[in-house]
Order: sequence, then structure tokens, then C-alpha cells
Amino acid sequence: MRAVVIHAPKDLRIDTFPDASPGPGEVRVKIAAGGICGSDLHYYHHGGFGVVRIQAPMTLGHEIAGMIAAVGADVDLKVGQRVAVNPSQPCGDCVHCREGMRNQCLDMRFMGSAMRTPHVQGGFSECLVVPAYRAIPVPDSLSMAEAAMAEPLAVCLHAGKQAGPLLGKRVLVTGCGPIGALMVLVARTGGAAEIVVTDIADAPLATARKLGATHAINSANDASALDPYKAGKGVFDLLFEASGNQAALRGALDLMRPGGIIVQLGLGGEMTLPVNSIVTKELQLRGTFRFDPEFELGLRLMGEGVIDVNPVISASLPFDRAVEAFELASDRSKSMKVQLTF
Amino acid sequence: MRAVVIHAPKDLRIDTFPDASPGPGEVRVKIAAGGICGSDLHYYHHGGFGVVRIQAPMTLGHEIAGMIAAVGADVDLKVGQRVAVNPSQPCGDCVHCREGMRNQCLDMRFMGSAMRTPHVQGGFSECLVVPAYRAIPVPDSLSMAEAAMAEPLAVCLHAGKQAGPLLGKRVLVTGCGPIGALMVLVARTGGAAEIVVTDIADAPLATARKLGATHAINSANDASALDPYKAGKGVFDLLFEASGNQAALRGALDLMRPGGIIVQLGLGGEMTLPVNSIVTKELQLRGTFRFDPEFELGLRLMGEGVIDVNPVISASLPFDRAVEAFELASDRSKSMKVQLTF
Amino acid sequence: MRAVVIHAPKDLRIDTFPDASPGPGEVRVKIAAGGICGSDLHYYHHGGFGVVRIQAPMTLGHEIAGMIAAVGADVDLKVGQRVAVNPSQPCGDCVHCREGMRNQCLDMRFMGSAMRTPHVQGGFSECLVVPAYRAIPVPDSLSMAEAAMAEPLAVCLHAGKQAGPLLGKRVLVTGCGPIGALMVLVARTGGAAEIVVTDIADAPLATARKLGATHAINSANDASALDPYKAGKGVFDLLFEASGNQAALRGALDLMRPGGIIVQLGLGGEMTLPVNSIVTKELQLRGTFRFDPEFELGLRLMGEGVIDVNPVISASLPFDRAVEAFELASDRSKSMKVQLTF
Amino acid sequence: MRAVVIHAPKDLRIDTFPDASPGPGEVRVKIAAGGICGSDLHYYHHGGFGVVRIQAPMTLGHEIAGMIAAVGADVDLKVGQRVAVNPSQPCGDCVHCREGMRNQCLDMRFMGSAMRTPHVQGGFSECLVVPAYRAIPVPDSLSMAEAAMAEPLAVCLHAGKQAGPLLGKRVLVTGCGPIGALMVLVARTGGAAEIVVTDIADAPLATARKLGATHAINSANDASALDPYKAGKGVFDLLFEASGNQAALRGALDLMRPGGIIVQLGLGGEMTLPVNSIVTKELQLRGTFRFDPEFELGLRLMGEGVIDVNPVISASLPFDRAVEAFELASDRSKSMKVQLTF
Repeated sequence: MRAVVIHAPKDLRIDTFPDASPGPGEVRVKIAAGGICGSDLHYYHHGGFGVVRIQAPMTLGHEIAGMIAAVGADVDLKVGQRVAVNPSQPCGDCVHCREGMRNQCLDMRFMGSAMRTPHVQGGFSECLVVPAYRAIPVPDSLSMAEAAMAEPLAVCLHAGKQAGPLLGKRVLVTGCGPIGALMVLVARTGGAAEIVVTDIADAPLATARKLGATHAINSANDASALDPYKAGKGVFDLLFEASGNQAALRGALDLMRPGGIIVQLGLGGEMTLPVNSIVTKELQLRGTFRFDPEFELGLRLMGEGVIDVNPVISASLPFDRAVEAFELASDRSKSMKVQLTF
Repeated sequence: MRAVVIHAPKDLRIDTFPDASPGPGEVRVKIAAGGICGSDLHYYHHGGFGVVRIQAPMTLGHEIAGMIAAVGADVDLKVGQRVAVNPSQPCGDCVHCREGMRNQCLDMRFMGSAMRTPHVQGGFSECLVVPAYRAIPVPDSLSMAEAAMAEPLAVCLHAGKQAGPLLGKRVLVTGCGPIGALMVLVARTGGAAEIVVTDIADAPLATARKLGATHAINSANDASALDPYKAGKGVFDLLFEASGNQAALRGALDLMRPGGIIVQLGLGGEMTLPVNSIVTKELQLRGTFRFDPEFELGLRLMGEGVIDVNPVISASLPFDRAVEAFELASDRSKSMKVQLTF
Repeated sequence: MRAVVIHAPKDLRIDTFPDASPGPGEVRVKIAAGGICGSDLHYYHHGGFGVVRIQAPMTLGHEIAGMIAAVGADVDLKVGQRVAVNPSQPCGDCVHCREGMRNQCLDMRFMGSAMRTPHVQGGFSECLVVPAYRAIPVPDSLSMAEAAMAEPLAVCLHAGKQAGPLLGKRVLVTGCGPIGALMVLVARTGGAAEIVVTDIADAPLATARKLGATHAINSANDASALDPYKAGKGVFDLLFEASGNQAALRGALDLMRPGGIIVQLGLGGEMTLPVNSIVTKELQLRGTFRFDPEFELGLRLMGEGVIDVNPVISASLPFDRAVEAFELASDRSKSMKVQLTF
Repeated sequence: MRAVVIHAPKDLRIDTFPDASPGPGEVRVKIAAGGICGSDLHYYHHGGFGVVRIQAPMTLGHEIAGMIAAVGADVDLKVGQRVAVNPSQPCGDCVHCREGMRNQCLDMRFMGSAMRTPHVQGGFSECLVVPAYRAIPVPDSLSMAEAAMAEPLAVCLHAGKQAGPLLGKRVLVTGCGPIGALMVLVARTGGAAEIVVTDIADAPLATARKLGATHAINSANDASALDPYKAGKGVFDLLFEASGNQAALRGALDLMRPGGIIVQLGLGGEMTLPVNSIVTKELQLRGTFRFDPEFELGLRLMGEGVIDVNPVISASLPFDRAVEAFELASDRSKSMKVQLTF
């Protein structure tokens, strides 16, 4: 069994491992598709982010889907069932799990993450053994590529939930990588009255328009296009900040109406902010992190045809061309979501 | 100037009145379209509902749109501007207005309602003088018929707001008259994962399917079709009860999941309910009444193409055939929303 | 080991059982105090309530506290530790547990309840073996009698949570048995601006005054005392309905302000309600059922001196006088909360 | 009529003005007490804050109470009535006023503020003419000094509202000037389970203890005392940040539990924050600004004895010793709230 393993920055290899058999309550999934996430790119380019650094070789990947190849004892799923693999494994018993915030579990195991040592291995591998409850059946109408989008879609559905009701809202999305693009889809699906998207590159803005953005603005070249949104004390009810860029967040504060809600998805480290603007306009800056029930919800919404993520998938490459795929995924002028096939 | 006036049950007349001129801050609107509401039908058939009874002849109608024909002093609107007329005039200064619940104003004036004496006259008339702030510009892309739907749409957007987030929710709508049908649209627009509609007549259920209902069930003929939704403690997150019928509400309680929210739109008077079911499943039964900012929001959402109400409009008749139109609107096998043209 | 066992209506016996030893993860608690709940009284007088009926002899009691007498393997608690026993044992893994509504568990085991067959035995016994995680340490400042109030207090803290913020609210409490009395305490602790209590008996109203009620009104003798609260559309922000009586709930609807929240604690079966009042004033009728984290919270708040439940405890009798205690607890002119001692 | 007027930084004078007569709907209030606010001190020391600077001499003061000395036409209040003067005059008709956020009015007039030019004059004067609706009757049980606390109390009640329910919460308050001290009172009144207060000076911490803080910690001398609150991912449900100090906010982030709410009261300008901590713990940073219905609510709560603000008032000086009073108010080792008497 081969897998895509990060050894050091820019040292991404296809390594071979022995196959594992599913124990009781487990299944072996033959992976079909896996999406490259921004955090995978961080491991690839920098060996991690912030204080999270790879201490040992780690299989990357946590946006994966495939087909059940073998089942252990006490498992209801059948061989041949197509599933998306939920990369998140909360303990179910800590204070946060008990209060329904399982994404904040004190003992979380999350695939392809170096937050814990030893690291929890990721899913860019030909086969994977996981607890059966994390293998979620995929509706027949979906492709494996769409199923592998369940994870980033879940992140964005969770972010949408942090914002409260979306129907009729005027929404700004800053940063239009794959997450920003999915936020446009979520805002559109939730009935936003207006969706304005900003980025500093033109290619993702073109995608944003296809996804239903009302306006897509290059904030590097055409910042004045945002001026009308400063009317009164500002007009947007909601901001989904998906760039992790200080300038994007600062610039948006003047566009937000009093009481407006900012959902911060982008991880940007230290930011210097005019806190008085948050205070006097009574804005709310809300963090959002991962997901929980939204993983199954995303599959359901895609299956019902309520959300179509296909325009976000920009390329698919065989996993043995992983380095090429990672480089492609790093080029925002060409790529939105790049997936590996297995 | 002629208007559609109710004198007594089944005594609906076309009466003639002198034209009025707009004073300062007012406009005269030449009405183009007016929708017949359930409350108009109550005045027509029964002279009112509950304790609200007509004490004197009253022009009916509060779902109206037209074109500005004259403007008074200090008005920014121009002659020729197409507008929808907001029938609601809260005082702006009572405790409820001050706290942002203007629909609960202690001194509300609402068009075509016998709640106050003398009654506030309605809008089924060739011309109408109203405060300019209640004449809301209509986006170019909308017909006058759509613009006249702003009011019932506002009712349903307000009901949707009472429910909190709609995205991804499993929704039940009981009763599929014009309000139930618009609730299907609102739930669909808000990104519901599933929308099940019940009624006791087949014609409105066919409309519900066209509007995007996942399932439309005749609860008189096929009640067992609801059984799968009783799984666990019940599955629906939200119920929009638009029938005002006790059996519909009672039947739905077993289908609601713990913590589920019931938004009650239907006015049904006394109902005998199994309160223990509400207590032990921690359901929430929430009333909803009229609207406030949702009037402008509805126009905006229709103008942006986010909501299309056309399938709800089943017929349009000239206002001098009002009696025929009211009879038609009362026949659920033939009609959803019936409008008058002027 | 002796326990208080219900065999049939009015057939309450002191039966003897063999002692059990704690297994791994379990503790044996020597019970010190146990409060008699309304549901215990229902079993005693009627053999149950609604469809819940005793099918076999069952030890009653779920408001209990004591001292750890023995510990099994893998338990951190020490012999001698004083604990309150949480009677609630959710599965931790069903859909409702996972979303943080463990009190709605699909596979709940709740002490002294005939909802399941075989019944889950209660805690009115000299000794009890329970999972260690359900034995919650009691702050040193509390008596065993106070500790045994953790359960009904948790019910009321959970009900308070359903109401949202309490600070500055105008609150009505209808029905002043032990639960109504504790709701007065919770509303007072939460900073209510005004607390009006109604009952049809004078004795509990006297207790309500001691607990901090602003006004305590006998609604049978002095209904007109409520008239001032009908001002405008009504004045109360919140109602805690603790009587389960239809007349109490109906009467309160006219006293609620628009948008007011009614938390229904009382189990009253079928009630005929003027639903139009809920609709037009946009009231919210919210069920509340049991508790989850509020059990530990109640102990904490009592321990910190934030809540003092002592005035609610009206009598304590040795458990071998259980019949006398149950009769006393049934007499509202003499009793609020009656506890057994062991 | 004499008033306390700021002409330039450190140039505070007692100037004389002609008396005004109340017009229709107005009253003349003979001021009795006026509290010195942090913004008054900013005008005194620096001529303003941020971009807000005095352009012309301005009477300071917006925490005032007195007695009605004369009434204009159409006023229900009587001469001799004791009133607190609400310094806030929203337009009542802009989009924010209509939606119940009157404190965010686009055309706000706020007493003693240089935000508008010409400035809105303040209330540190012997007499003041104001619209009658802004003169709120004071309960008999309150002193004029307490009545003059209605404004800062309203600020803190509004901040408390931003936090949602307080009952049972673990609360941190950073910065214990008059606003921080009132936040301790509000948290205590709202039933917080635990209130930890930090400051860098000892005197205000002593006051915090008197007001009911569970722990009061000098974060300059004894930062390690906060370490236990870092358990797990942090323990506080709520933070009221009343220092406007970057170090206080940064230091608190590690103490907040996932999903915790930070209500930012302190105006601190630019702050550099570790936004990733907000993102990954899903914290919410919420601004709060002024108040609206909380002004009357504060008077009511003080009148009912639910809140006692007296321990926050540290000194009262005659208004003609204003310079001395402003210097005293600037000395945190000696002063909490300093008031002027007239």
C-alpha cells in the first residue's frame, strides 16, 4: 500500500506500507479521491504552521472518499459501499464533547495533523483502516470527487452556522481560495441577498462569479469599488474572512454595519486591529474551527442537489504525481481545489 | 375613483369615492395589482374573524402595488416610479417600536383591517394616498403582480426569521394555501435540506412540488406516509404550521425532533394540545405576526432573482369582477393566490 | 440493605435487598438524604402518570446524596467523600447526546422511573452502587439535605437556561410547589427585576415571599390583582409555568408582553389554548425537561453561596416513615419539599 | 447659570450662561449630581481621544440627575419630580433606530460629546433644558448620587446583554475602574458562579472584592495567580474587557474556554492580537457601545434593591472644585467614581 508522505519541507514522497486489516468496529476503505487542503500545502512548503511542525514523516490528507474494501466484526456497512471518511475523531466524553462542541474535544485525533505527537496519519493512501462510524455513506448521485469535498464543505457549513441566519443577508467574503469559494456557495445556498467577494488575484474572482457572487472585486487593483459599501456606518451584515490577511480584515471593518458579524476562517497569526471600530459599531468577531455534524450534512446537501461543489474542483491528478499536484495547488492563478486520485 | 368595499358578509361592492391629493410627505399611487389575502376572504364570507368584525363599510386589500401618480411636498420619489405599498404603519415611538418590534406597535394602523374603529381603509382602489416612506420602489425586473406579492412574502420571511437558521434544516410545512406555499419557497431559498408539505387537498400539493418541496403528502388520504418521520423521537427540525388546524399541529408534534421549533402562522383559535409532548421533547411553539423590514427585503430578494413567486399566483381578474375573484380565491381546488388588476 | 419500594398505588413498603459491591468504575454510596419529587408522589398515589405505569415493584427516589462507602477499580474518588448522585445516565453516543442534548438521549436510564421496562431502580435505599462519574463531590459548606436538592435545582436551572437571559426581566411564576419555589430562587439569582408568583393555596405563596418574590398572588381568591399586568399588550418578559394547570397558562397569556417567553415545566397533559394569542403576540412556548450539566452547576452555585435552597426544604423524616412522609409531601398546606433521611 | 466647561487640555473652567426656558415637550432640570466619566477625563487631559477632539468650548458631563424645576407645554412630569437625565438622543427613524439598535443611530446626539460639530453640550451645569422623555423619574429609595449612576450602570447592563445569559457563568473582568467595577456588580447580580477580576493597581482590586468578586488579582505583580484558569483549553465562559489594554486582552485569551465570549468595553485603539487563538477556540469578540433601554432598567434595578452601586462612588465634590475633582478622579490609587454636586 502506497501513501503520500511529507518528510520535510519540499520533501514529499510516495512511501510503501504494509496493508492493515480492520479490527472489530472498523472498515478498510480503498481511497478513490483526496483533496489537497491549505494545511497540506503548509506542511509541504514549510513543514507546518505556527507552533505545529512535523516531528516525523506523516501521511498527508484529510479530504478523502473511497469504497469499503473489507469490514471488521460488528460493522453494519457492506463491502462495496462508497463512503466519505470523516477525518475527525473526538473522544466523546470530555467537557466539550458532552456539551455538543465535539470539534473542540480536549483529546481530538484529526487525520494528517501534526498537532499531536505521535502524529495522526492522514488519508492520502491507497487504503485506510478507520472506525466504521467515521465512514459515511455517499449518496448515489455524487461522484467520488464530490464526496471528497465533504470535509472542506463541512468547514464552511460550520462557519455558516457561526454566522446565524443567512437568508436575506448582505454578505462579504474576503479571500477566495477554496474555502472562500465554498463560503460563497454556502452563502448563496443559505439565501443571501447579496454576496460580494474580494481577492487580490483575478482567477479566483472569476470562479466566485460562476458560483453566484453578486460582485467580485480585486481589492489590490480596484479598492475604490468597495467605497459604496461604506454608506452610513457600513452595509454588510456578515463577513466571512477567508484570507487570514490583516489588510483584508482591517479593510472590511469599515464596510460592516453596526452589529455585523465577522466569521474568521483564515488563520493569519498576529493581526493589528482597530479594536475601537469593533467596540463602537458593536461588531462581533467570531472564530470558527473545523466541524462536527456538518460533515454528514454536507453530503446530504450535495446529494439532494442543494449544493453543487463541482465548479470549485479545478484539477485531479494521480497520487503518484503528488509533487506536481501540490505545486499546481499552490498556484492561485491556475488552481482552486486540486484533488489526487488513487 | 372606485374601490372594492365590504359592507356585510357576501356584500362586496364597487363603490366610488372622490380622489384625494397627496399632502406633504405623501404620494398618490395608481394601483396596478392587489392580491386577495385570507383575511380579505374572512371579511367577505363572515364579516371578520374572532372578535374583529366590520362595523362600517371598509375597502379591502393590503397586498398592493402600483405607480406613483402624484407627489406632495418634501417627497423624493418621482411620478412614474413603480412602488409596492407597505400596508403597515407603526407609530415608531411606543415601547415595542423602540425595541425593534414595530410589528407589535401599540398603535398600529394596518390597511384594510377592522381591528381599529374607525377602520383603516384598504388598498383595493384605483388610487391611494399614502405616506411616501410606505411606497417602496420596485426593482425593474419585477412585474406589478410580483410586486404585489411583497406583503405575503414579507409575512413568510418574518416567519422564517422566527425559526432561526434554515440552512440544512429538515422542514415540515403543514397547510399549503398561499402562505404555506410561500413558506416552501422561503425554506427552499434558505437552504433547507428537506421540505415535506402536507395538506388535505391535492391541488395545492401539486403546487408545493413545483415550488421545490421534497415530498408533498395528502394527510387526509395518506397519513401513513408520515410514519417514517417519527423515527427516534421524530426528525423535523422546523415546522411551519400554516393551516391553523388543530389536527395538523397535533399530528406534527410526533414528527418533531427534540428541541424542534414550530412556527405557528395559521390563526386557528382554540386548540387542544398534548402539552406534555412539548415539555418532554423541549419543543418551542413560536408565534409569528406580520412583518417589518421583511417588506423591503422581499422586494430585494425577488429583484435579485433569489426568490420567484410567480408559481404562487394562480389567477388575475379585473377589480370590477371582485366578487368572482373572491369566490375563485375561496376554491382551493382551483386557486392559490388570486390577484385583482386595476 | 433496606429501600422504599412502590408495589401498587398506596402500597409503599420498606423492602430488604442484598448489598451490592461496586465493580470497576463504580462506587457504593451510603445514602444520607433523599427528596420526594412530584413524580414519586404520582407513583405513590396513582401508580404512575400518563402512559407511564409501574409494571413491577420499583424503588422510588432520584434526589439523593450520601457518602462513598466503597470504590471499585479505576475510580479516583475516595471512601468518605460526600457526593450527590446524578440520577441521569444518557448513552453518550446517540444523535442527541452528540449534539449536546444529553437530556434527550434516545437510550436514557433515569433512576426511579418506570418509563423503561424493566424499570430503572431509584435511590431511596440505604446503599446504592452507581458509576463513579455520576457521584458528584459536594462542597464542604453544604449539608446533605442541600446536596439532595441538586437534582430539582438542576431541573430549574435548565428551565432558566431555556428562557435565555434573566437579568432585568419581569418574571411570572405560576404554581409554587417545590419546582415553582426553586424557579423563584433561580429568577432571583439571575437578577430578575420583578418576580410575581401565583398559586391557589396560601402556604406556598408565603414561602415564595420568603424566597424573594416581589408579589405573591392567590389567583383563586384575588385574580384581579393580576389586572395591572395586562397594561398595553401585557408586561411579563418571562413565564415559568410550574403548575401544569390549563387555567394558569391561559390566564397568563394576557399578561405576557409581545415576544415573551413561556417556559413550561408543569406536566399537565391535554390543554386547550387560545393559539391566536400566541401567534399575534409572537409568544414562545418552550418545553423544558430534566437537565444535564446543570446538576454540577447547581452544586457549585449552592457551594459558592449564590443560591440558598434551605427555605424550600419543609420537613425531613426517617426513611422507615416513608408513608407518613409521602402523605405529608402531598399536603400543600403544610409542605414544600419533604426529604427522607437514611 | 454656571457650568463646567472644557476649553483646551487642562483648561477646565466654570463659565456662566443665561438660563433657558423649556419649550413644548421640554423640562428644565436643576442638576443635583453628576459623575465624572473616563471620556470626561480624556477631554480634560488630552482634549479628546482618537479623532474626536474639542473644536470649541464644551460643557462636560453625561451622568447626571436632578429635580425638575420647570415644565414646558404638553409635559406630564411635575415640578419637583426627581429625575435622571438620559444623555442619549437617537433620531428614532434611521435604519438602526427602526431595528431596535437606537444606540447605533446614524444621527445620534449624545451629551458632552465632541463627535459632532457643533458639539452637543454636556450636563455639568446648574440647570439643563432637555426633552421631557429623556428625564426619567427616580425611585424614591434612591439618592441623587445613585440616580447619577444610571448612565454608567446602563453601559454595563448593555454590555451584560451582549454576553447573553450570566447565570452560572465563570466570568473574568479585566480592568477595574468604575466600568470594570460596575461589570462585577452586573455579573454578580446576574448570578455568575465565579467572578475573577484583574487590574494592575491594588486599590480598585480591594473595591472589586467588596463588590463580590470571587478573586481579585494584581496581574502586574501576581500573573501566575491566573495559571490555574488555563486548565484544559481555559475555563472562563465570559470576559468583560474593561481596560482597553492590549496586554489584558491578549493575556485573557488563554484563559477562555472554547466558545467563550469576550465583551470589549475598553476603548484601546490599535491592538495586536493572536487571531489564531480566536479562530481555533471559536471565541467571540463582541463590541459594546453605550445603551438604550438599559438606562431605565438600571434605575429600576437600583430602585428594587437588586443592584447597589454605592460602593463604586468614592468621592463627591462641589462642582466649583471641578479641577480638583477631575484630578482626584484621575488618581486610581484613591478614586473609583468621583461625582460633582451642584
